[in-house]
Amino acid sequence: MAQKPSIPNGTRDFLPQDVARRTYIFDTIRSVFKSYGFAPIETPSFELSSTLLGKYGEEGDKLIFQILRSGNYLSKIETSDVTDTLTQNDFDKLPLEDRKRLGSITKRISEKALRYDLTVPFARFVVQHQNELTFPFKRYQIQPVWRADRPQKSRYQEFYQCDADVVGSDSLLYEVDFVQIFDQVLTKLNIPGFTILINNRKILSGIAEVSGEADKLIDITVAIDKLDKIGQEGVEKELREKGVSEKAIEIISPLFALSGTNEERLAIMRTFLKDSEIGLKGIDELEFVLEQTKILGVERAIVEFDVTLARGLNYYTGAIFEVKAHDSGIGSICGGGRYDDLTGVFGLKDVSGVGISFGADRIYDVLKDFNLFPEDTNANLTLLFANFGDNDAAYCMKLSKQLRAIGVDCEVYPSNAKMQKQFKYADNRNVQFVALIGENERNSGQLQLKNMTTGEQQALTETQLMTFFQQ
Amino acid sequence: MAQKPSIPNGTRDFLPQDVARRTYIFDTIRSVFKSYGFAPIETPSFELSSTLLGKYGEEGDKLIFQILRSGNYLSKIETSDVTDTLTQNDFDKLPLEDRKRLGSITKRISEKALRYDLTVPFARFVVQHQNELTFPFKRYQIQPVWRADRPQKSRYQEFYQCDADVVGSDSLLYEVDFVQIFDQVLTKLNIPGFTILINNRKILSGIAEVSGEADKLIDITVAIDKLDKIGQEGVEKELREKGVSEKAIEIISPLFALSGTNEERLAIMRTFLKDSEIGLKGIDELEFVLEQTKILGVERAIVEFDVTLARGLNYYTGAIFEVKAHDSGIGSICGGGRYDDLTGVFGLKDVSGVGISFGADRIYDVLKDFNLFPEDTNANLTLLFANFGDNDAAYCMKLSKQLRAIGVDCEVYPSNAKMQKQFKYADNRNVQFVALIGENERNSGQLQLKNMTTGEQQALTETQLMTFFQQ
Repeated sequence: MAQKPSIPNGTRDFLPQDVARRTYIFDTIRSVFKSYGFAPIETPSFELSSTLLGKYGEEGDKLIFQILRSGNYLSKIETSDVTDTLTQNDFDKLPLEDRKRLGSITKRISEKALRYDLTVPFARFVVQHQNELTFPFKRYQIQPVWRADRPQKSRYQEFYQCDADVVGSDSLLYEVDFVQIFDQVLTKLNIPGFTILINNRKILSGIAEVSGEADKLIDITVAIDKLDKIGQEGVEKELREKGVSEKAIEIISPLFALSGTNEERLAIMRTFLKDSEIGLKGIDELEFVLEQTKILGVERAIVEFDVTLARGLNYYTGAIFEVKAHDSGIGSICGGGRYDDLTGVFGLKDVSGVGISFGADRIYDVLKDFNLFPEDTNANLTLLFANFGDNDAAYCMKLSKQLRAIGVDCEVYPSNAKMQKQFKYADNRNVQFVALIGENERNSGQLQLKNMTTGEQQALTETQLMTFFQQ
Repeated sequence: MAQKPSIPNGTRDFLPQDVARRTYIFDTIRSVFKSYGFAPIETPSFELSSTLLGKYGEEGDKLIFQILRSGNYLSKIETSDVTDTLTQNDFDKLPLEDRKRLGSITKRISEKALRYDLTVPFARFVVQHQNELTFPFKRYQIQPVWRADRPQKSRYQEFYQCDADVVGSDSLLYEVDFVQIFDQVLTKLNIPGFTILINNRKILSGIAEVSGEADKLIDITVAIDKLDKIGQEGVEKELREKGVSEKAIEIISPLFALSGTNEERLAIMRTFLKDSEIGLKGIDELEFVLEQTKILGVERAIVEFDVTLARGLNYYTGAIFEVKAHDSGIGSICGGGRYDDLTGVFGLKDVSGVGISFGADRIYDVLKDFNLFPEDTNANLTLLFANFGDNDAAYCMKLSKQLRAIGVDCEVYPSNAKMQKQFKYADNRNVQFVALIGENERNSGQLQLKNMTTGEQQALTETQLMTFFQQ
């Protein structure tokens, strides 16, 4: 009985061209990470549920895919016992007692869950392998993660993260390196313009302190982080709703319109934060990173101090990064920051770290929208030998073996089909050259090579063919 | 509260050296696949359960990891409702009614499952995308698969498969190519000796036919496939138990001792199968592949016709391949064969295909046991700049940026720590060179470069340093 085949919502098949383009992005990121001394690690696709649950907040927990303990439970049950599928809707209508029972059972039969991001597994990895690692430990990791998000455009249930982190050092040189890495990768990918936004969590703490609302730090930062989306009025409204005093709002509001060069902004903020020790420390750190970046220079990046940048606040403790591509309509394509206690939850205290993440899927969308993929991500095969029959094919098989040895990707058409069909295959596969070698050509020692782009055809000896591709 | 971190049984963390070594294996396989005209695809980690279940037999189904519909079910349940974990043992002790109920519930709340191999998802892919693909469609796929197997040495719950398949052609040239691919990959990986065993399912059918037990084909093949493990006597015993007649056993038995060159074996089998049309077709096919292979030549492989080779019989319809590394004590490291109706179950009939698979984890074990990994999979970082303070570090940051631009992986030590500590870091990371640039060196324009392997140290100008690494 034939099934109509499909894949789960929110997942994707990648055809050869997709894979070539994605590989191009991953390879570019990987080569830059490597050039800065980051070494690759990989962690299992699933972790113990206890490693992941409770690390991403209530909303995050809901998005973690749990795996049943094994298929064995199911194998003892006849399929005929299962009459229908329980949708979330059905589930929500069940009496609380039943829901509890069902949840209890699923928790009892599930002990593993798919990785939700690369950060928590990395923290677990560092603690578990601490005696095998050299600190500061610099790792990169390019692997898929899974989230039970409602599928929508550019949001998938399976997608790749490309992370680089250093743990075990609070040196600001790493922040300087990460700004360079953003600039190098995105310049190599040929993205025409992009801005690296940078802030420091200590500056945000200073702002809350100076406004007299130190205990409302999180409310304040969550609100001003939304400036982009809801505007100054919206932010002020939210601050009021959270019980931030009018006086504090009056103090904070001028920051929304902070402008000028980074140096001018730093000067304004240094004055603003003059009574906050932590705030001034943030300014010092940020100033160091910006100064060093100026000395080193950047290729295409605009580096901008954005005092409203917060991102995942309860996590970062120092630098905060975000990168946006210009004119793309696609949100942030990279992020990152410093954290002081990522490994604490797994029992290793006081390990400072800093890391960044490239959003490969969003970068893919930017490159696609701007038509920036290099030509050779379209190419599929260099050379196809047409097939005129068993004896000719055997000769071509021998020749193709020699060509592969000098780095030419090639193949022999598998059967003596009509030429039209063989050329159609070459067209569809985007083959660059077709070699025609029949009995006449073998006898004369002159084969025909057709350039599929220009349509030109030339006669070559076997030796000339080798030389042609060695160039 | 600190948790003691660990990972699920049967899964692995890969440290930088592991990743480098695995990448070396994958890259080698990938480059050869590509040189033979295979293009990469990727499929989602999880498929709809209906795509996978029922495709791997009863035993296979038990090993498929099912994923819960989403985390939402669990999120509404208090953790306190869950008192203990239900082990397989506990489960087996439950009354049948309860087991059915539990199984029924889990089936209702699970609709996705992790990929068990790459073959069934590939068949689904071909049918789903048939209008976007060019046939014969040649794809390779290197991705992890998951099996709920009991973990043991060299058997993991998550491991990589490296497959290449062609669908949409019955040309034997692909069989010839696959023999070459086995030889090329394993030679490039420097495995000293290996045997490519080859057989044809039609020969097995012919044997059953000639022995007068055509209807017992599967029993006969399953039995003789075990010759390696249980010997001739064991096989004959199993044949008897399956009801194969003494006369048939007498006819089949001489095949266990088949020896001589491939040509001699073919000649013996051609006589043996002279009354079986399908058997003779199998001989013709195999002879073609062996002859073409002889013309093309092989590097290190021994190619051997093994009439007892069967492998996953209910699947293959033509050629059958298996590769074993010599003197390794590790079983087969590659396999493959031709199948005539892989896509039929998804509604696309009469599509012949042939494919092979490299067992990356077993190959890893062979390379490790024989100490065959290349030196550069150990290297981690080319150059470390020692750090003598902020000003020197800023200078080194600039220099390292220039070196990266010419392809040198390098970094600056993050803080002005004691030299002993910095050198220890360089040692642990297996750094090749350490550059020493303090105030004196900056003033004199002569930096010190230490070779960490030889211990030699030399004075170089900045320009000489660039030239040194450009060589």
